[in-house]
Amino acid sequence: MQHPVKYEILHICKQTGARLGRVTTPHGSFMTPAFMPVGTQATVKGMSPEEVKEMGAGIILSNTYHLWMRPGNELVRKAGGLHKFMNWDRSILTDSGGFQVFSLATPKDIVEEGVHFRSHIDGSKHLLTPEKSIEIQNDLGADIIMAFDECCPYPSTHEYAARSQARTTRWLDRCLAAHKKADTQGLFGIIQGSMFEDLRKESAEAITSFDLPGYAIGGISVGEPAELFYKVLNCTTPLMPEDKPRYLMGVGTPDYLIEGAISGIDMFDCVLPTRLGRHGTILTDEGRKIVRDKKHEECFEPMDPGCSCYACQNYSAAYVRHLFKAGEIFGMRLATYHNIHFLLNLMERVREAIASDSLGDLRDEFFAKYAGARYNPYSGLER
Amino acid sequence: MQHPVKYEILHICKQTGARLGRVTTPHGSFMTPAFMPVGTQATVKGMSPEEVKEMGAGIILSNTYHLWMRPGNELVRKAGGLHKFMNWDRSILTDSGGFQVFSLATPKDIVEEGVHFRSHIDGSKHLLTPEKSIEIQNDLGADIIMAFDECCPYPSTHEYAARSQARTTRWLDRCLAAHKKADTQGLFGIIQGSMFEDLRKESAEAITSFDLPGYAIGGISVGEPAELFYKVLNCTTPLMPEDKPRYLMGVGTPDYLIEGAISGIDMFDCVLPTRLGRHGTILTDEGRKIVRDKKHEECFEPMDPGCSCYACQNYSAAYVRHLFKAGEIFGMRLATYHNIHFLLNLMERVREAIASDSLGDLRDEFFAKYAGARYNPYSGLER
Repeated sequence: MQHPVKYEILHICKQTGARLGRVTTPHGSFMTPAFMPVGTQATVKGMSPEEVKEMGAGIILSNTYHLWMRPGNELVRKAGGLHKFMNWDRSILTDSGGFQVFSLATPKDIVEEGVHFRSHIDGSKHLLTPEKSIEIQNDLGADIIMAFDECCPYPSTHEYAARSQARTTRWLDRCLAAHKKADTQGLFGIIQGSMFEDLRKESAEAITSFDLPGYAIGGISVGEPAELFYKVLNCTTPLMPEDKPRYLMGVGTPDYLIEGAISGIDMFDCVLPTRLGRHGTILTDEGRKIVRDKKHEECFEPMDPGCSCYACQNYSAAYVRHLFKAGEIFGMRLATYHNIHFLLNLMERVREAIASDSLGDLRDEFFAKYAGARYNPYSGLER
Repeated sequence: MQHPVKYEILHICKQTGARLGRVTTPHGSFMTPAFMPVGTQATVKGMSPEEVKEMGAGIILSNTYHLWMRPGNELVRKAGGLHKFMNWDRSILTDSGGFQVFSLATPKDIVEEGVHFRSHIDGSKHLLTPEKSIEIQNDLGADIIMAFDECCPYPSTHEYAARSQARTTRWLDRCLAAHKKADTQGLFGIIQGSMFEDLRKESAEAITSFDLPGYAIGGISVGEPAELFYKVLNCTTPLMPEDKPRYLMGVGTPDYLIEGAISGIDMFDCVLPTRLGRHGTILTDEGRKIVRDKKHEECFEPMDPGCSCYACQNYSAAYVRHLFKAGEIFGMRLATYHNIHFLLNLMERVREAIASDSLGDLRDEFFAKYAGARYNPYSGLER
């Protein structure tokens, strides 16, 4: 089948096995490994589309659950689809809504048909099913849409995770049957299985048996220790097809991004840069820096000296701190801008290192400086 | 004396007598009549300096009281001055802080020395004097600084207004004596006198007897009826020198801007466009429009059809409404952008009309459409 989303491998890093690639969708191409800024409610919080573009993002993620609840998928469809509605002409990926509704549901609300839950806005009752998720995503019109899956909480029992993982496969079947726009929207399947290697293997086999334009790893980076995250990541990635993009859902800390790339992941998303930015914390090569802190009161250097972003090129840490203390929106804008730029730039550095077969060196340099470094004990990297 | 702020008249509208001019400061020139967006706390709320520039602002206003309280004038001085601190390389005007501290003080707190008041941030006690206001403004480094005056509340008795107006003149003398940067910062005097024509005349004579680079009208547009506003405006403006810029403080509704220009005013400022924008209301030729209203839910037209601004060119009213309902910062950005653009564009239309001797026509056309129009019964315009 001809999928609307295509993937090419351009180079494999000789030092790490990481993949440099390119994903092409109906709204253009982006280089991988790629970080996708999150625009939950049809806006990357605080940013304009032009700003997200000038930082180099080729794809953003938006949330099906949120847009379904407000303003509603039908309104977005009438507006001409999500791209037009939010003035973003590059690629968009929408999640399935599963992650959000599972967090709003109790175990008895989860049935074979789907998930019963109450809206976080007005408490109204709703049912999200595989069919409904795809219908909403068809209305939104993202280039990449995600299968409706069950993301197990951490920790879960083997029994629970096994049932859940099997259901995720049945739900994928229903998603595919419901998908009405396979010519313009590529549906990715999601591998689940909680922290259990046997279930991850079972899920990977089942999910990748469907001919899809891409596959994702769900259900990790959900609160488990770093060792467990790395173990599951490094046992799952090799089970995924080499000729399709691999998406690690919800991951966005610098250390996980680098290790994810080394593991063979191509796409990542996370609310981290926007959420931290709105609260006055920035990401740097040395770790997080709380710009709002008193100690930056008279710091007339940039927030992150040496950074090439708009915020660091034009404003001092003292100014940004003042804006946060004074409750000014522009402070959130500057910190958010820096954080998204930081992660997009980090991925650019990762891609350059893959191209020059030196991602292992970049990783070593990075972890030597990065505060709170969590070196991956399961990394496939041999040095 | 050679002032650092210069004014040239380029044309007088034959239809109305309004002045097309140019003010030049150490940070460039701007055409008048000009609207100055307000950047209270060293940022035009929600906007970047680049956005304010691309809309065409040549000068912004910032508030001495707010910057004194937070982050402090010494910090701004150490940062290299307000221009560098906030990354704005065009002209800046700072007010004296008087307007704010009078609103925080009771009558007995106002003495010949200055005004005792408590900070709105932490309740700490402070005294603002003419000397202190100028010291702070010298530290901030704006191109145009304002004399510390007493702005009478409305209504005030003739006796109170007379005393207050006389004190404003004595305080101007002290401001001039305290001014340490007369070579780079132009000090404007402020004409007071509440709603009394005899006091306005007295104040105008006293204030304009000082050789200053510009003069302002304070103490109107403070809650009085429109008829009274127009009466005081039109009796005061003719008393001001023709060869100096005339600044009408705190005025920014479209009707007052047009009538102000006809009266012979060159500069205006107001928080209206940013404040309305943050709350989801926009300015249009037809009056105010509450974009947050339910009735715009499925309006896929721009907020203000026909408007050439970034927000109206790229986004629908439905999208902006969604952003406000969802509490998204970008909604405030778009509505604020539109509003500042609207007023700057209105002044551009006013300047073009002056140049073509047709400001009276523009005024008639404007008021024929503008909802809540308040036609100036005291306008000098003869038709």
